[in-house]
Amino acid sequence: MDTSASAPKLSFDTNPSKYRHWTLAIEGEIARLTMKVEPFGGAKSEIELKSNSYDMSVDIELADAIQRLRFEHPGVKCCVITSAHDKIFCAGANIYMLASSTHPFKVNFCKYTNETRLAIEDASQNSGIRFLAACNGATAGGGYELALACDEIVLIDDGSSTVALPEVPLLGVLPGTGGLTRVVDKRKVRRDLADAFSTLAEGVKGKRAVEWGLVDAVVPRSKFADTIAQRARDLAAKAPDLPRGKPLKLDPIGDYRHVSLKVDEKSRIADLTVRGPADAKRVDDASFWPLRMARELDHALLRLRFEHEHVGLVLVRTEGDRKLAHEIGELLASDDGFIREVRLNLACVLRRMDVTARSFFAVVDQRSCFSGPLFELLLACDRAYVLDADGVEVWPGSLSSGALPGWNGISRLQTRFLADPQRVQKVLAAAKEGPIDGPTADKLGLATVFADDIDFEEELRVAVEERASLSPDALTGMEQNYRFAGPETLATKIFGRLSAWQNWIFIRPNATGERGALTMYGKPERPQFDYRRT
Amino acid sequence: MDTSASAPKLSFDTNPSKYRHWTLAIEGEIARLTMKVEPFGGAKSEIELKSNSYDMSVDIELADAIQRLRFEHPGVKCCVITSAHDKIFCAGANIYMLASSTHPFKVNFCKYTNETRLAIEDASQNSGIRFLAACNGATAGGGYELALACDEIVLIDDGSSTVALPEVPLLGVLPGTGGLTRVVDKRKVRRDLADAFSTLAEGVKGKRAVEWGLVDAVVPRSKFADTIAQRARDLAAKAPDLPRGKPLKLDPIGDYRHVSLKVDEKSRIADLTVRGPADAKRVDDASFWPLRMARELDHALLRLRFEHEHVGLVLVRTEGDRKLAHEIGELLASDDGFIREVRLNLACVLRRMDVTARSFFAVVDQRSCFSGPLFELLLACDRAYVLDADGVEVWPGSLSSGALPGWNGISRLQTRFLADPQRVQKVLAAAKEGPIDGPTADKLGLATVFADDIDFEEELRVAVEERASLSPDALTGMEQNYRFAGPETLATKIFGRLSAWQNWIFIRPNATGERGALTMYGKPERPQFDYRRT
Repeated sequence: MDTSASAPKLSFDTNPSKYRHWTLAIEGEIARLTMKVEPFGGAKSEIELKSNSYDMSVDIELADAIQRLRFEHPGVKCCVITSAHDKIFCAGANIYMLASSTHPFKVNFCKYTNETRLAIEDASQNSGIRFLAACNGATAGGGYELALACDEIVLIDDGSSTVALPEVPLLGVLPGTGGLTRVVDKRKVRRDLADAFSTLAEGVKGKRAVEWGLVDAVVPRSKFADTIAQRARDLAAKAPDLPRGKPLKLDPIGDYRHVSLKVDEKSRIADLTVRGPADAKRVDDASFWPLRMARELDHALLRLRFEHEHVGLVLVRTEGDRKLAHEIGELLASDDGFIREVRLNLACVLRRMDVTARSFFAVVDQRSCFSGPLFELLLACDRAYVLDADGVEVWPGSLSSGALPGWNGISRLQTRFLADPQRVQKVLAAAKEGPIDGPTADKLGLATVFADDIDFEEELRVAVEERASLSPDALTGMEQNYRFAGPETLATKIFGRLSAWQNWIFIRPNATGERGALTMYGKPERPQFDYRRT
Repeated sequence: MDTSASAPKLSFDTNPSKYRHWTLAIEGEIARLTMKVEPFGGAKSEIELKSNSYDMSVDIELADAIQRLRFEHPGVKCCVITSAHDKIFCAGANIYMLASSTHPFKVNFCKYTNETRLAIEDASQNSGIRFLAACNGATAGGGYELALACDEIVLIDDGSSTVALPEVPLLGVLPGTGGLTRVVDKRKVRRDLADAFSTLAEGVKGKRAVEWGLVDAVVPRSKFADTIAQRARDLAAKAPDLPRGKPLKLDPIGDYRHVSLKVDEKSRIADLTVRGPADAKRVDDASFWPLRMARELDHALLRLRFEHEHVGLVLVRTEGDRKLAHEIGELLASDDGFIREVRLNLACVLRRMDVTARSFFAVVDQRSCFSGPLFELLLACDRAYVLDADGVEVWPGSLSSGALPGWNGISRLQTRFLADPQRVQKVLAAAKEGPIDGPTADKLGLATVFADDIDFEEELRVAVEERASLSPDALTGMEQNYRFAGPETLATKIFGRLSAWQNWIFIRPNATGERGALTMYGKPERPQFDYRRT
């Protein structure tokens, strides 16, 4: 049994002045995000991040930059992603970092980088920031997957630079950041060409890369800068004009104000409590409750994933004034620019919860404030334990009618009531009259368990103990299948299908065994495979 | 490295007179398929198949029975699936059989049982045979998954019989036969109730099973037989009246007439050759070429999976008269009852190929007959190597325009040309004029590699050697992601997502390690888990 220590402690709290690997430059409508990975500046200082290969520390900065583009630079309509290295765009995730990481870390790393790529696509779709990958050199593995997340890919035509997904031939694993899915489902590359491409370690360049649909254009070195500049202007000009509000400075997370996370390592159970707003006022800065609360919640979820690998179950509680939370939820449902960005951010955080490999049980009692935006937390949980007592209420609002879609593209209420779509309207109609009391919530299908105070604590205690005792792998697999019923999207394909295969392959001896391809990478000997196909 | 021998040799060639575990009785429009598993009659005679638990030998008979219902009993409009045991419907896959099987066998077993369940649903949807699960006792694990594949589930209300998916709590694995997907996506059970259900080892019975949507009705023992009979009549009466032709007796497979499979265990490469028809006549018996050919192909694919685990690459060749194959393809596209069943069967076999964890390369040369139904084989391959020489032609026909859908519900041509849907029409239009020569096929996007005789053999040789050298796990993952671009269906969710999770969990020490839950099942000690969540 692999019992190596957790990964090095990561800081998810950064800003452009602290970036070691990226620079973010803004010129009018065009942003330029330039990658130059500091070779010994990664999370594990002993691993050299050569050739713009990346680790978590690089991706955390990228994720931060995308969030800041949305809030701090509402005038930006196109972001060029490029590299400051000559002849290298990005070599993908660092192999030595991956090979020396534990299985849980590998999976969490891939999940996080996937979320960052999907954040790029979300920023394009919902904030109208078009992304242009200016691949000024070799674009391999995760480097090409980063390019795939952009709206357009332009590759330099210098006789040598290629785009490549060399994971299968070189490492015996899959591209871990949505690559396969985006090749055939986003770029719609023919499956036989996709197959040939993904087994060509050296990749594809020039005209053929365009013909196969792997890139949108190839441009000689002499015209590369001008072409990128022109394409960026064109993308900006054609980007939809979405209201995004005034620039806003995101403050550091520092100490939590609205969220608390208490972990009991022994029982492997965490308490996650989110407190409602102190008032229902709109504040156009980073202290605005729904923004600050969502950022803290996001931070707490990442800490759970990376710092508390053994925790299996999270009890989700809320506290506060239900009326204020409901009012602020209704405010968030309006379509003003800044408010819209705050809402989109909250939607991203809730989706981070949906793919977090932990069981979530909502605990609903007299102190609870599952109201407005916090009601969505109840829907995001695997189960809801609702106390049958006076003063216990939940209060959905307009936000729950589609403004915070899950990865499957529909609202969590729709996903919950696939069998009876009218139930969605019944819940929303009931909430229009005011808070929904326990018995009504139970009747409407919002409680998994509804018990009076004689049974409540005991039922919850037994369920918690049982959950914590079950196989963590089986629970992860079960939850990933149950959380995404209904329609499939690029994202559910990536998290549901591609990630599952990747998880499987990572744990197989052919990849990570003593003579597996990932373990043997960079060594003179060839990997050894058990060739039985399964 | 697990190097245990292959599974016991299985015979896929059976008929009702040979069944050991099932009886098939027909009464007018109603068929009755009754399970009584012979305890020591399984594939491994030392494992006792207690409580109607099953192994491959049981599922092979079930699959055979469903195929015979379609061809031999065109008058049947409802099939009742039940058990001859008192108080037990079916306990699911036998745990000791699973725990003592190799990983490749476990995966292949689950895949086959999944295909059988999907064959039930295909028979319901396309042949109008409604299935009624008459759960006359405990219905657990794969037993409940069998019931889930039926159109209706009726559970006996005897105070003790439950439906259950105890895999997560008891075995630390997932239900392996589509259970999770069908619970939330077919029966649309609320996700929190599905979660509670799937962690309750003892299952759910009575009124609650109906309320949660797990079964359609519960009926007391005294009324069970009458209710089932009445519901079966109702289902038959409401079944659509689809043309199914005259009864036809399926002959044993025995020696192949139209297919040959040659395996080189050393190079891990197989040659699969399918020969075209000797004439284009319609024959209303089991010797009709498309029926016999498809059944042989199906048989060969199963042999590949179960008897040749090390084979990684299959070279798919065809031979014969292209004109005759094209004519018979056009005949198959018509909607006469018997012809329709033959076509539906061919579609099932091609879908079996789509989920076979082997690489398939089509080799197209002067001898080839990728024409009519055999053209679809080219599309089902991961790549097509087309020789640039006179006399090399392919000839798609009406069958390829949607009559043989893949698991994603659309035609293989549509899947191939997602980026350019008009290309589908161009290919079909070109084929209307006659066979398509090599250069045109290449231009239309039907060739992965198009090379003249100087390069052809060499290109193919290099590609074959390279393919056979790559990690079998990475190839399986890659192919499963590339073969199902486009829309998602219940089946792609099952094969793409659920199976991937199941494969992963099966290989994790928490399930199959020395102290894993599957290994420890039935022993007094508790399993030990590495609780890190991933």
